[in-house]
Amino acid sequence: MSYERANIRRMAGYAYGEQPDDATVVKLNTNENPYPPSPCVMQALAAFDAEALRRYPSAAADDLRHAVARRFGLAADQLVATNGGDEGLRLAITTFVDPGAVIGMAEPSYSLCPVLANVQDCVIAGVPLSEDWSLSANFAAHMNNAGAKLTCLVNPHAPSGRLIDAAYVSRLAGELDGVLLVDEAYVDFVAPECGHDLTRLVAEHDNLLLLRTLSKGYSLAGLRVGLLMGDAGLIAPILHKTRDSFNVSAIAQHVAAAAFADADYARKCWRRIRTERQRLTAGLRTLGFAVPGSQTNFVLAEAPSGVSAATLQAMLRTRKLLVRYFDQPRLERCLRITVGKPEHNHALLAALAALLER
Amino acid sequence: MSYERANIRRMAGYAYGEQPDDATVVKLNTNENPYPPSPCVMQALAAFDAEALRRYPSAAADDLRHAVARRFGLAADQLVATNGGDEGLRLAITTFVDPGAVIGMAEPSYSLCPVLANVQDCVIAGVPLSEDWSLSANFAAHMNNAGAKLTCLVNPHAPSGRLIDAAYVSRLAGELDGVLLVDEAYVDFVAPECGHDLTRLVAEHDNLLLLRTLSKGYSLAGLRVGLLMGDAGLIAPILHKTRDSFNVSAIAQHVAAAAFADADYARKCWRRIRTERQRLTAGLRTLGFAVPGSQTNFVLAEAPSGVSAATLQAMLRTRKLLVRYFDQPRLERCLRITVGKPEHNHALLAALAALLER
Repeated sequence: MSYERANIRRMAGYAYGEQPDDATVVKLNTNENPYPPSPCVMQALAAFDAEALRRYPSAAADDLRHAVARRFGLAADQLVATNGGDEGLRLAITTFVDPGAVIGMAEPSYSLCPVLANVQDCVIAGVPLSEDWSLSANFAAHMNNAGAKLTCLVNPHAPSGRLIDAAYVSRLAGELDGVLLVDEAYVDFVAPECGHDLTRLVAEHDNLLLLRTLSKGYSLAGLRVGLLMGDAGLIAPILHKTRDSFNVSAIAQHVAAAAFADADYARKCWRRIRTERQRLTAGLRTLGFAVPGSQTNFVLAEAPSGVSAATLQAMLRTRKLLVRYFDQPRLERCLRITVGKPEHNHALLAALAALLER
Repeated sequence: MSYERANIRRMAGYAYGEQPDDATVVKLNTNENPYPPSPCVMQALAAFDAEALRRYPSAAADDLRHAVARRFGLAADQLVATNGGDEGLRLAITTFVDPGAVIGMAEPSYSLCPVLANVQDCVIAGVPLSEDWSLSANFAAHMNNAGAKLTCLVNPHAPSGRLIDAAYVSRLAGELDGVLLVDEAYVDFVAPECGHDLTRLVAEHDNLLLLRTLSKGYSLAGLRVGLLMGDAGLIAPILHKTRDSFNVSAIAQHVAAAAFADADYARKCWRRIRTERQRLTAGLRTLGFAVPGSQTNFVLAEAPSGVSAATLQAMLRTRKLLVRYFDQPRLERCLRITVGKPEHNHALLAALAALLER
């Protein structure tokens, strides 16, 4: 006998990127930061008093929350720490979207979003992105007509890498009837000359949630720390009601605060990745791939005509080079390639050149 | 404007026990283990390679899961690791109980359960426990008549400390139409002479879920690691669909496995706590409290007649002794007191003797 809810029985789980044990594999498939976490993380771990684990952690991750709030000019009640960014996305759905109600998103986008919608038994209203990966002009109207309680955008966008600017996001938040969640998982990699900053919009829109993670920008995917920022009215029910009471461990709070405090180190890594992003993009274009300009730590590479992206991925895999392939509309001709260290990107470009005989 | 779902707006959040910063406070209020984690935890932390945090953790906590499964004679697909026991409880609701459907429980019980039910917009069917904290004879029939999709028991029971034996649990699982979740948060403290072991029931009942945590028995409340065990048919949707993909951090997996492996150390702590439990129970009874025999790391002490439990708690607090008070039916005359180290328990008994002038 099956005891699952009908919506759970019907759905498929999230398909995450391959995580091989083999350390010699070059992993350009899950957008991990190629650089180690800050030396402050190592120090924080070494200095952590294991006996403190005996006690429950700060329920609301107070020290971390206050430190992040200060950096972004927010109040502590405009921020909640989460067990990775994924928990932030789930909590937004739990808090703002009734089962049967509508979650809006641009398609394609982060493939976890439809999975979480299924778990909550919600309906997805998906609007295809334009040819150039921009949002369609009537996006807000479409969401409002669909009755979306929550609209989720990934910005910079995954998997295209394209950035929507703050003015556009602000206009969208103003137009939407429901909550707008902007998943900023990759925002740390945006070129500084863009002057991109959505945190100042928090004060202007009571329906705007910003989702951050330390997984990418701070090289802490293994630690599981994310942040939701927004109007105190949006944050309060998550902070005080819907999240698990002790959702971020004492070690995660301690280590995340240390990583976040070392802004210089993080910025240095981001700069290196931006430099390599340019080199990787140029190299792929030279090989005949179409690559939209990316503001993230990955690029989306559309295979030259006549070449199968799926086959390329499989052949790269035999050479211990992992990249991501999504067998879905708009992406079946593309590879999503994480920006690695120079030697990784070089190895990838060399392998592709050999495979394509160029 | 409020964007919260109506059920979230209506509900109150979980009220967790006070966590003071002051290290001189004697904390007997949240059932933390008074002994530090195993020395193996310190070693595991010191040996942890911080650079590994750059990568995503094992999505399903494979090493930990296999180690725990081996210990309990289960298959790895009969077990899922969670971000603390609380996540296990939430996931059981998410997976098995539709919004509007019924969750059964004995009352009073773990106060998080009704909170999680509210988040999922479920209905609680509560059956009061008998005078001696046992389940009523018609408990299963009551649950089935109410249409409970999930029935949650805490065993040994919180806050009474009473243990239901395996034969009773097995009969109950057989009688219930829905899933039976037994929260075994305190099971490590059961006297070995009871020969209590529910893990062998997993093979016999396809509707039985056992919830464990490393918070209490392994002194790791700050680490956030729990375990759900049950038939593979119950575990599969949680493992592959409803939990967040990377719900347990790399550090938590690593440290939890180290603590779990050091069974000798854990057993030594449990033995000490059982010894102190006896002493604390006897001391409280001498002072005129009614104290049911406990199989946990806490005791429920009903104040002598004419004495206010709430006042006692407040007065203990001024002496930097924290105990837990629940202002709710059946408990308004009681204090729930965690078994501490000998000196803590002694200080508590001395303070109570002074307050009661005995």
